[in-house]
Amino acid sequence: MKWIQSVQNEKVKEWKKLLQKKGRDHTNQYIVEGFHLVEEACQNPSVVQAIMVRQDIDLPDWAPPSIDTYQISPEVAKAISDTETNQGIFAICSKVEPSISKGAKSYLLLDAVQDPGNLGTIIRTADAAGVDVIILGEGTADVYNPKVLRSAQGSHFHVPIMKGNLSEWISKLQSQGVTVYGSSLQGAKPYQSVKPQSPFALILGNEGNGVDPSVLEKTNENLYVPIYGKSESLNVTIAGGILLYHLVHAVHEE
Amino acid sequence: MKWIQSVQNEKVKEWKKLLQKKGRDHTNQYIVEGFHLVEEACQNPSVVQAIMVRQDIDLPDWAPPSIDTYQISPEVAKAISDTETNQGIFAICSKVEPSISKGAKSYLLLDAVQDPGNLGTIIRTADAAGVDVIILGEGTADVYNPKVLRSAQGSHFHVPIMKGNLSEWISKLQSQGVTVYGSSLQGAKPYQSVKPQSPFALILGNEGNGVDPSVLEKTNENLYVPIYGKSESLNVTIAGGILLYHLVHAVHEE
Repeated sequence: MKWIQSVQNEKVKEWKKLLQKKGRDHTNQYIVEGFHLVEEACQNPSVVQAIMVRQDIDLPDWAPPSIDTYQISPEVAKAISDTETNQGIFAICSKVEPSISKGAKSYLLLDAVQDPGNLGTIIRTADAAGVDVIILGEGTADVYNPKVLRSAQGSHFHVPIMKGNLSEWISKLQSQGVTVYGSSLQGAKPYQSVKPQSPFALILGNEGNGVDPSVLEKTNENLYVPIYGKSESLNVTIAGGILLYHLVHAVHEE
Repeated sequence: MKWIQSVQNEKVKEWKKLLQKKGRDHTNQYIVEGFHLVEEACQNPSVVQAIMVRQDIDLPDWAPPSIDTYQISPEVAKAISDTETNQGIFAICSKVEPSISKGAKSYLLLDAVQDPGNLGTIIRTADAAGVDVIILGEGTADVYNPKVLRSAQGSHFHVPIMKGNLSEWISKLQSQGVTVYGSSLQGAKPYQSVKPQSPFALILGNEGNGVDPSVLEKTNENLYVPIYGKSESLNVTIAGGILLYHLVHAVHEE
């Protein structure tokens, strides 16, 4: 285990850059922190490039021996952390181009979901619902943003996540027999009135503007979650959870 | 309109205290900020004690003329705000003891939901789902915390919210023919397997520990949202949204 005390160390400067999108894009790497996320990352050892532990923390048993490890000072830990109080354990991970399994039956498409906390929660919910593939359209927050990683609680390592043009994806999916559902408050059906099809894709949209109208035009059907009370709308993460669980039922019943 | 420039003004000192639970408990008042929340508050004019607008902001037309209004300096606005960048409009509101309508058919009980953002999102979701009454058990975050108010986006003014002992409420509701559903990962049924009853009550629990076992023992039935993928759990706001929308369907179909 190598020891790094100074925040001026070249490695530390590299790691710090991964807190910014520019640094992640440049290196094709990202940084995760906390016991849960680092352990999840280590389930895919080829993803993990390095593990860093603060001097007061023992390297856990589950850390693969083949991976470079660094013992770091509290100052270094603070410098590379995105949280107020870090747990003292970090990993550097490589972005991996995901592959879609041939049997994929459920797809989640996101159109410009901008809030990192929302994006992470949606990824975690999609994982729970057993979604096979997540596709991020333009304008969506960076999926390797530390706040997205934290909110998703490790689901980045469970579900293939890729970027793409949503209109092109809709055409491609429809040509493969996938029923594509948009979500919209206008010109849409209450979700309970629709009998879920398998395979399916669901599109969720931007927090303020919803799914782009040019995308909604291409879907097979657009759904909404009825508002029975006086609130103006549901948070996109909640509406997404309700719609996904309604739709996945058909997939898991097969 | 009175003019207040100094943060040392006695009124300002009173208002600032409402950012803390102690101050709210002591005066039975709370403070809301932002155009949307202040406008929602003004729908119930008897609730609003005062409106404050920053000197660069016009008092909106919807502000009831009977209410005391104050023009305040940017320094005062900053002092009484809970946000980084305030919108320059605030209201002082009185806590109101809510009344339950006789025809109430849907109840949401919360057992120690601690995160203010989660509590606010649950209140907003319950409003959307048309829940008639929300009951907060011990250990739940203060419902008048500024972050709870912001996340709920005005639903505080739509749904009666009260504090109470959950075990006592369960007995009372059951004696009135209300079916009470707990939520739990152990000893529970998948929610889809349960035919919703009307009237009903749903209990959601603490983010880490769920609903207290002594409470779960008293319910008619305990439900869970199945995890089909590899994530360990759902966020309580998402699980709550899925369960509520499953259950309210029976109420709204009547």
